[in-house]
Amino acid sequence: MKLKDEDKYNRLIKAAIDLLAEAGLANFSTTKVAKRAGIPQSNVYIYFENKQALLAAVFQVTVHEQSLAVVKGIDDEAPMTRQLVASIQTLYRFARAQPATVAALQVLLDDVQLKHQLHVKVDDEANQRIQAMLRAGREQQVLRTTDVNFLRYFLSRPVFHYAAGVQQQLYPDTPDALADLTKMIMGAVLQPAVYQTWLINLA
Amino acid sequence: MKLKDEDKYNRLIKAAIDLLAEAGLANFSTTKVAKRAGIPQSNVYIYFENKQALLAAVFQVTVHEQSLAVVKGIDDEAPMTRQLVASIQTLYRFARAQPATVAALQVLLDDVQLKHQLHVKVDDEANQRIQAMLRAGREQQVLRTTDVNFLRYFLSRPVFHYAAGVQQQLYPDTPDALADLTKMIMGAVLQPAVYQTWLINLA
Repeated sequence: MKLKDEDKYNRLIKAAIDLLAEAGLANFSTTKVAKRAGIPQSNVYIYFENKQALLAAVFQVTVHEQSLAVVKGIDDEAPMTRQLVASIQTLYRFARAQPATVAALQVLLDDVQLKHQLHVKVDDEANQRIQAMLRAGREQQVLRTTDVNFLRYFLSRPVFHYAAGVQQQLYPDTPDALADLTKMIMGAVLQPAVYQTWLINLA
Repeated sequence: MKLKDEDKYNRLIKAAIDLLAEAGLANFSTTKVAKRAGIPQSNVYIYFENKQALLAAVFQVTVHEQSLAVVKGIDDEAPMTRQLVASIQTLYRFARAQPATVAALQVLLDDVQLKHQLHVKVDDEANQRIQAMLRAGREQQVLRTTDVNFLRYFLSRPVFHYAAGVQQQLYPDTPDALADLTKMIMGAVLQPAVYQTWLINLA
C-alpha cells in the first residue's frame, strides 16, 4: 500500500472503531464510516470488499492493539504470577486510555452472528505471545487447567467491564479498586494454593 | 390486559427475544418481530410505543426470568457459600435451557447505547432477592467488599459465556467443568479466607 493509501485505510479503521464504540452495530454502515473519515464512500470499497470485511479488519486491529499493550507490559523473565498481574493492570490502563478500541472490540466479540465469522490473524505475534504465556502458566500449574480461551476471558472481560464502569462513574478508579479487581481475577484463574501463596507474599 | 391481548403481548416478546438471540441488534426491527410473531405490524404499537419500548420490555422480561430461576434454586436458610454455589449452578442450567433468553439479555446489556437507557423494574422481587443475598454476603464478610453490581457481574457473565461456549461446542459440558467454573467464580467473589475454607470443606 502507498503511504497515502495507508493513511486512508487507517482513517477508515479509526472511524469504524469510533462509530462502533458510540453507536454499536445497530447503527453501523460503510456510508457512516466513510462520512466520518471524510472519504468518498466509493473509495471504501477499494480497501474493504464490504461491511463484513471492514468489521473483520476492525476486529484484527483491536485484538492486535490490546495484545500489543499487554505484551509491552509483561516481563518474560518475571515469575508467572507477576506476569499475570502485569497483564491485568496493563490491560486496565489500556482500556482506560483507549475506551473506543475496547468498546468496539467488545461489540464485535458479543455479537451473536459475528463471533462465528471473526478470526484473529494467525500471524498476530502479540496475540500469540499472550496465548503462549497462558499455556506456560497452565503447564507450570500456576493457572487452573481449564480451557486457555476461558482463562483469557477471565483475564480480560472483567477488566473491560470494570474500566467501562469507571468511565461511566459507576465504579471507583483508585489504586485500591484496581488491586481488588486484580485479586478477584487472580482468585478465579490461579490454582487455589498458588493464589493463597501469592496473597501471603502481597501482604 | 385481556387474555387474548396478553397472548399477543407474550408472542411479541418471545419473537423479539428469538430475533435478538439469532441476529443481534443490527438486524432488529419491529417489522421483523411482528412478522415472526404472526401479528400485523400496526398491532405492535398497541403494546409497545416504539422499538425502544419493546427492547425495554424484553430487557425486563429477560432479567426477571433469569432472576426467578436463580431465586428458585436458592435456599434462604442455607449457609451463604451454599446459596452462592446454588445461584451459579442454577444460572448455568437456566442458560443451557433458555439460550435465547440469555443471548438476548447479553445483547441488550452489551449495547453501548442501550445500557444507559434500560432499567430493571424496581418492583422485580426476584431481582431484588438476589441483590439482597449479595448485600447479606458482603455484610457477613463472605463476599468481597466490592460493588454489589460488580459481584453480580462475576456471578453471572462468566456463566453465560461458558454456557454459550458449551452450546457452540467450544467448552465441555461435564460435571467436572461445572465444578471448575463454580470454583473460578467463587475464587473471584469470596473473601480469600472464606474461599480457602470452602475449598477444604468441598474436598
